[in-house]
Amino acid sequence: MLTFDMIAQAAERLQGVVSRTPLLESPLLNNALGFRLLIKPECLQETGSFKIRGAYNKIASLDEGQRNAGVVAYSSGNHAQGVAAAANAMGVEAKIVMPTDAPRIKLDNTAQWGAEVITYDRQTCDRAQIARDIAEKTGATLVPPYDDYDLMAGQGTTGLEIAEQLDVLGAKADKVICPVGGGGLIAGLSTAVLARHGDTEIWAAEPRNFDDTKRSLEAGTALSIEPGHSSICDSIVTARPGRLTFPINLKTLSGGYSVNEPDVVAAMRILFTELKVVAEPGGAVSVAAAFSNKPALQGQTIVALVSGGNVDMDSFLGWMA
Amino acid sequence: MLTFDMIAQAAERLQGVVSRTPLLESPLLNNALGFRLLIKPECLQETGSFKIRGAYNKIASLDEGQRNAGVVAYSSGNHAQGVAAAANAMGVEAKIVMPTDAPRIKLDNTAQWGAEVITYDRQTCDRAQIARDIAEKTGATLVPPYDDYDLMAGQGTTGLEIAEQLDVLGAKADKVICPVGGGGLIAGLSTAVLARHGDTEIWAAEPRNFDDTKRSLEAGTALSIEPGHSSICDSIVTARPGRLTFPINLKTLSGGYSVNEPDVVAAMRILFTELKVVAEPGGAVSVAAAFSNKPALQGQTIVALVSGGNVDMDSFLGWMA
Repeated sequence: MLTFDMIAQAAERLQGVVSRTPLLESPLLNNALGFRLLIKPECLQETGSFKIRGAYNKIASLDEGQRNAGVVAYSSGNHAQGVAAAANAMGVEAKIVMPTDAPRIKLDNTAQWGAEVITYDRQTCDRAQIARDIAEKTGATLVPPYDDYDLMAGQGTTGLEIAEQLDVLGAKADKVICPVGGGGLIAGLSTAVLARHGDTEIWAAEPRNFDDTKRSLEAGTALSIEPGHSSICDSIVTARPGRLTFPINLKTLSGGYSVNEPDVVAAMRILFTELKVVAEPGGAVSVAAAFSNKPALQGQTIVALVSGGNVDMDSFLGWMA
Repeated sequence: MLTFDMIAQAAERLQGVVSRTPLLESPLLNNALGFRLLIKPECLQETGSFKIRGAYNKIASLDEGQRNAGVVAYSSGNHAQGVAAAANAMGVEAKIVMPTDAPRIKLDNTAQWGAEVITYDRQTCDRAQIARDIAEKTGATLVPPYDDYDLMAGQGTTGLEIAEQLDVLGAKADKVICPVGGGGLIAGLSTAVLARHGDTEIWAAEPRNFDDTKRSLEAGTALSIEPGHSSICDSIVTARPGRLTFPINLKTLSGGYSVNEPDVVAAMRILFTELKVVAEPGGAVSVAAAFSNKPALQGQTIVALVSGGNVDMDSFLGWMA
């Protein structure tokens, strides 16, 4: 189970380890939009995404014997760096299973956090199976990307911070919009926000053709998206909602937004020019959802969480040109 | 005079008006550099630069009669937006004298903050004189860009925040490096930091050929740089130190760094890729100074203030390509 108390406990564990990212806004942008847009920039978090919150909380919840046996995870990007950095902070050995063709910078960063990087061929191997085999052989604990309650509790500390920061501003959010891949971040975030501000609606944002959570929420049951699509939002292209995350999200979320790529690029551009933060495409879908639903949001207060900023300069230049 | 008490009072006035920008760092970048680099990103401040701090404190220090008569300022960029936004927040009328050929976005933003924009021809007119004439005719108070003690006190709140944030981290800075144009920001910052942490050295960072403060510090007297140079660091290309700022800086600063343009562009790139923040060239000279003095800084803790992030996308793409 995931409870508010688990999230509050995670927040205590994370104090001094992760950054309390600010809430940013641009009054001129608000005027142009006709609604108040507050940005929670988790791109400014250590390792460039929120992932270290959940990874740290998960590893901190292990007993000494488990920690001594190390942890293992599979990821091509942000989760890899989050687990590696969290393990490093606690002096725990980490093995990270990553595809051979992952971006060099992500392989290098993960290794620089002291993790052992184990590469595999994306075409012929099942990374989850490789990680499970390592866990079985070595006794290491698997840190899954989203389907874990301690992990979700760590990600949920973003929601606790949002609620506290809104209180300081004397503001109430009509909607909090959050990028969704497997649904671990929004499961934690929604649990925390709703415990504090019961009237706020929590909405998922996903790239078109990877809007499995939106479709599943509408159907009332977990659905898979059809295969064969690609997206620039590489950090959140999951095929179906998580086994543990979806039952939570079915209760806590008000719905989902599906956004197209030109709107994602436009959102990245406005985050750059107006708010001076760097977002990766998957991190900016929440802001893209807010922009493309402008008429429906008039007069409201919207919080959009930007989940990460790990984008290489060449790709960014290409999208903005 | 500028005193620590004036800065502490400014901090109280600014509470809830300006953002308390965080201190950001990247442990992997620290490892690569061999020193700890903490970034104070004033690019994330309202209006995209620190300028609103001083402008707000200056206007807040006026009596009611003065406020009713409005304020006037001259600036081609960040100070214009800072004064316009600060005046707007207090319901004070602002007239801003800006060159006809200022970037469209800066003219527009200043107007959108509700200020009356008065344009002039950069080749034939003296903007300071135009502003003084307006002040004389209308009774408006001139808000100068740096040579004013209340203004410096407002800018100094950055230093107070840095000292407090270092205390929370349990860290002590060996050096704080700050971009310098007319010297108002660093005069306030150095006064605040030294009142709290007397052993910390405060260093100016300037673009090559506009390093008038560095040269003046070395000479012990205010010197002008020779004319005829240009720089991408448009927000800090002053010809000589301020009349009121330099005597303060001569006492408080340990020295100055002069940086070249390729190092500024490299600093902007690393701020983008490693810290996910957007810096303008003039805002990044502090980080460029830290990078280009790597051997001398080994093992130290360095705070680099990034003073602004108002860069248009086309220019950014050009520099990064």
